[in-house]
Amino acid sequence: MGDPRHDTTEPRRASEIATWDLDADVVVVGLGAAGASAALDAAAAGADVLVLEGAGAGGGTSAMAGGLIYLGGGTPVQIGAGFEDSVEDMYAFLMAASGPEPDEAKVRVYCDDSVAHYHWLVEQRVPFLAEFYPEPGMEPPGEEGLVYTGGEDAWPFDQIARPAPRGHKPRHTNAAGAFLMECLLAAVERCPARVRYDTRALHLVVDDDRRVLGLVARSEGRDLAVRARGGVVLCAGGFINNTDMVARHSPQLARCELKLGTDLDDGRAIRMAQAVGATTIRMDSGEVALPVTPPRSLVAGILVNARGQRFINEDTYYGRIGQEALFHEDGQAFLVVDEELYQPTRAGLHATWVCETPAELEAEIGLPPGSLESTLELYNRYAADGEDPQFHKAAEYLRPLTGPLGAFDFRVENPGSFYATFTLGGLHTDIDGHVLTPDAEPITGLYAAGRTTSGIAAHGYASGISLGDGTYFGRRAGRAAAAVVARADRR
Amino acid sequence: MGDPRHDTTEPRRASEIATWDLDADVVVVGLGAAGASAALDAAAAGADVLVLEGAGAGGGTSAMAGGLIYLGGGTPVQIGAGFEDSVEDMYAFLMAASGPEPDEAKVRVYCDDSVAHYHWLVEQRVPFLAEFYPEPGMEPPGEEGLVYTGGEDAWPFDQIARPAPRGHKPRHTNAAGAFLMECLLAAVERCPARVRYDTRALHLVVDDDRRVLGLVARSEGRDLAVRARGGVVLCAGGFINNTDMVARHSPQLARCELKLGTDLDDGRAIRMAQAVGATTIRMDSGEVALPVTPPRSLVAGILVNARGQRFINEDTYYGRIGQEALFHEDGQAFLVVDEELYQPTRAGLHATWVCETPAELEAEIGLPPGSLESTLELYNRYAADGEDPQFHKAAEYLRPLTGPLGAFDFRVENPGSFYATFTLGGLHTDIDGHVLTPDAEPITGLYAAGRTTSGIAAHGYASGISLGDGTYFGRRAGRAAAAVVARADRR
Repeated sequence: MGDPRHDTTEPRRASEIATWDLDADVVVVGLGAAGASAALDAAAAGADVLVLEGAGAGGGTSAMAGGLIYLGGGTPVQIGAGFEDSVEDMYAFLMAASGPEPDEAKVRVYCDDSVAHYHWLVEQRVPFLAEFYPEPGMEPPGEEGLVYTGGEDAWPFDQIARPAPRGHKPRHTNAAGAFLMECLLAAVERCPARVRYDTRALHLVVDDDRRVLGLVARSEGRDLAVRARGGVVLCAGGFINNTDMVARHSPQLARCELKLGTDLDDGRAIRMAQAVGATTIRMDSGEVALPVTPPRSLVAGILVNARGQRFINEDTYYGRIGQEALFHEDGQAFLVVDEELYQPTRAGLHATWVCETPAELEAEIGLPPGSLESTLELYNRYAADGEDPQFHKAAEYLRPLTGPLGAFDFRVENPGSFYATFTLGGLHTDIDGHVLTPDAEPITGLYAAGRTTSGIAAHGYASGISLGDGTYFGRRAGRAAAAVVARADRR
Repeated sequence: MGDPRHDTTEPRRASEIATWDLDADVVVVGLGAAGASAALDAAAAGADVLVLEGAGAGGGTSAMAGGLIYLGGGTPVQIGAGFEDSVEDMYAFLMAASGPEPDEAKVRVYCDDSVAHYHWLVEQRVPFLAEFYPEPGMEPPGEEGLVYTGGEDAWPFDQIARPAPRGHKPRHTNAAGAFLMECLLAAVERCPARVRYDTRALHLVVDDDRRVLGLVARSEGRDLAVRARGGVVLCAGGFINNTDMVARHSPQLARCELKLGTDLDDGRAIRMAQAVGATTIRMDSGEVALPVTPPRSLVAGILVNARGQRFINEDTYYGRIGQEALFHEDGQAFLVVDEELYQPTRAGLHATWVCETPAELEAEIGLPPGSLESTLELYNRYAADGEDPQFHKAAEYLRPLTGPLGAFDFRVENPGSFYATFTLGGLHTDIDGHVLTPDAEPITGLYAAGRTTSGIAAHGYASGISLGDGTYFGRRAGRAAAAVVARADRR
């Protein structure tokens, strides 16, 4: 304790390290989904693996998740539930939905290997039930293993790629993140990788050529120098719980009440890597889940912004609705519904305003006079014919909203509105997890995966991408670091 | 030539430097507005200053600018032209207009010192004429020295701070960036600072404690090791002309046809600093000028997006219009006008579509059926009374748009639409130009200013901010670096 330099992430020089307290071929920082997967595949490749977890147990933010994993291209779960999918449809969807400018190379290998990655999860004893759950977006409440989680079946993506549900939920009732992590942690226990808990990585150790040789970690009040012969793999989460970093890099996220992460999602691993010359990308990017449903029937309402204008097809993925509402509509959104819909529908969700006419409702909400009336007149005119030429909501949700009207308050400042967020920006890595400099050169000995990096989702998101790209690119990073040692041994 | 390491910005170790080819107290990289100002104030503080300019002459991107400098708080030009202003009004405007989450400390000192900075410019023999030019946004075509450049007099800022024009143009006809740089370069010539042209900084030189001792530059095919006793000041522009960096960090900017910068705006100085552990912030941020006027009369039209909806008060600053159109409306904007307005008005600007009715016009443009009709109906109803409850355009520009209609194509992909952009993200610095690590610690010996840094404009912009914060924070960085040597000499 008490070393003032612990406040910073500045690297330690190898020449400062008198003796290494611990060593391994591959040192993995963090035991969430990405770290567990890195450890498993590095160990499977024959490497001596040491995992350092800052908390007293594994799981990380992954264990707080719904447990959805974005997989496709024709997995046994998709086929068993009666859905056709192809690698190319999955690729076309992800390229369109996760941009602008997603990392094409990452999306490519992620789609190409998705079925194989599914089988790897099953080999780690993660069970799936080949049953479809029709309410999109959320994880199924029961054991159903498949759900739409990205608006694949809604405009505009239904025009871009053949829709298929790709949210795979491990077989477990309710949220399955903790269950997924139980499975992966049990697999880690079965493998030869060592795990040290309550051990927080603080500084990387570099030589004179900026090669990463290991790290300094803190455990039980003591600094440990940890040698990593093949590489350090940073899988230590994002930065949603670092107030300064969020304010600097993605200030809109600061306004969201529900920040999905543990205390250790403080961006330290990102900063440790920056301190040795790594670059970050897309630090402004964030997932913003704004569930305006269930019940799904509410999709028949219209979402309007502070000007009383619609801004999205209400039947799309709620993560898309959240990003649009927060980043493009300044976090100002209202769901306007008719009498059939505005009755209390679930705990915490009930119409904030109820009025006889659009003019009264817009006045009550504080929308510009005439605005909601005008929006409804246009919407209703086409909805009567099952059409939505402005936003292309599907016909099944289209009907004129008439008679007494209600509105739900989905403004970001309204505590009941439930904007749930985490960061999507982070270290720039290649497909094998090499951490890159601003010149896009790999830093020798340094790897990363999961939300410590910018992954599949450049900006747009689909539920299941974080556990999906965390596990998949965690594995690739673990194998890449293990291969360094295997190559050295062959010499 | 031919050193493959020149492709990267990796730092050189001091132990690699056999002899220093050049040395100075303060080494300034880049001779645009920021670099010239850094050199001038470092030299005024008694430092031995060496400026390295990559091009054959000084000026940089500053010399390509319109020449506006954002100054206020009651400058002699404001007072002479009959405008009252206060430091607090300037501060309130900048905090509101340049967010979200602008750097409060930078905005504070910038406003506090603005009148003094004006006098400094005059001392450098930059002349100003205390005359107001009423057409906002653009630099005046004549010698007028004062213009509105940030929408201060339009909603919502007119509600937040007492409006005052703060765009100060040096006394010169047409664009005055080149003239401003002539003045500043002449001042540099009069001062004892040395300048080397055709000398490109490639790598920083650091010691074992990551202190910056100097840099390696390339000149006439030869590598020069340059010692900086007090510090290196990076004033080398932004990264708008680095295709990879723009794609990674701000992909929307890639879509803009007009990228304001020289070939040297390739982000190299940013990457050199990152390579020694500096952090970048707001790399997604960019200025996007979309001049839908002149003539100012066109403000009486309405801007609509691809859904046929209005999205902004048309009388605001065109940089605000451009950012909204590009970042929030996917670069899809159309200006709808009536017969009085759609006649050819200036070279390259003429209505793309002309129709008898709104329904015909929306069909011609490809807007959703009914959308433009609905938007016009609502707009016209209130415009008849001089009101715009949705977007608060000023009454003087409000009148119903009836009869035959025309529309101008302001989509980003339309070459005639003129989206002009440069990057606003860059190195994180404090108010004295210290380049900061991700832990917000200064890197010893390293300073930066101008568009190499993220400055006053976190996201929102007003014309004149770049020459304003470049010159002001350039001076502060130069003085801070000079003070290091002065302190060492006193020891």
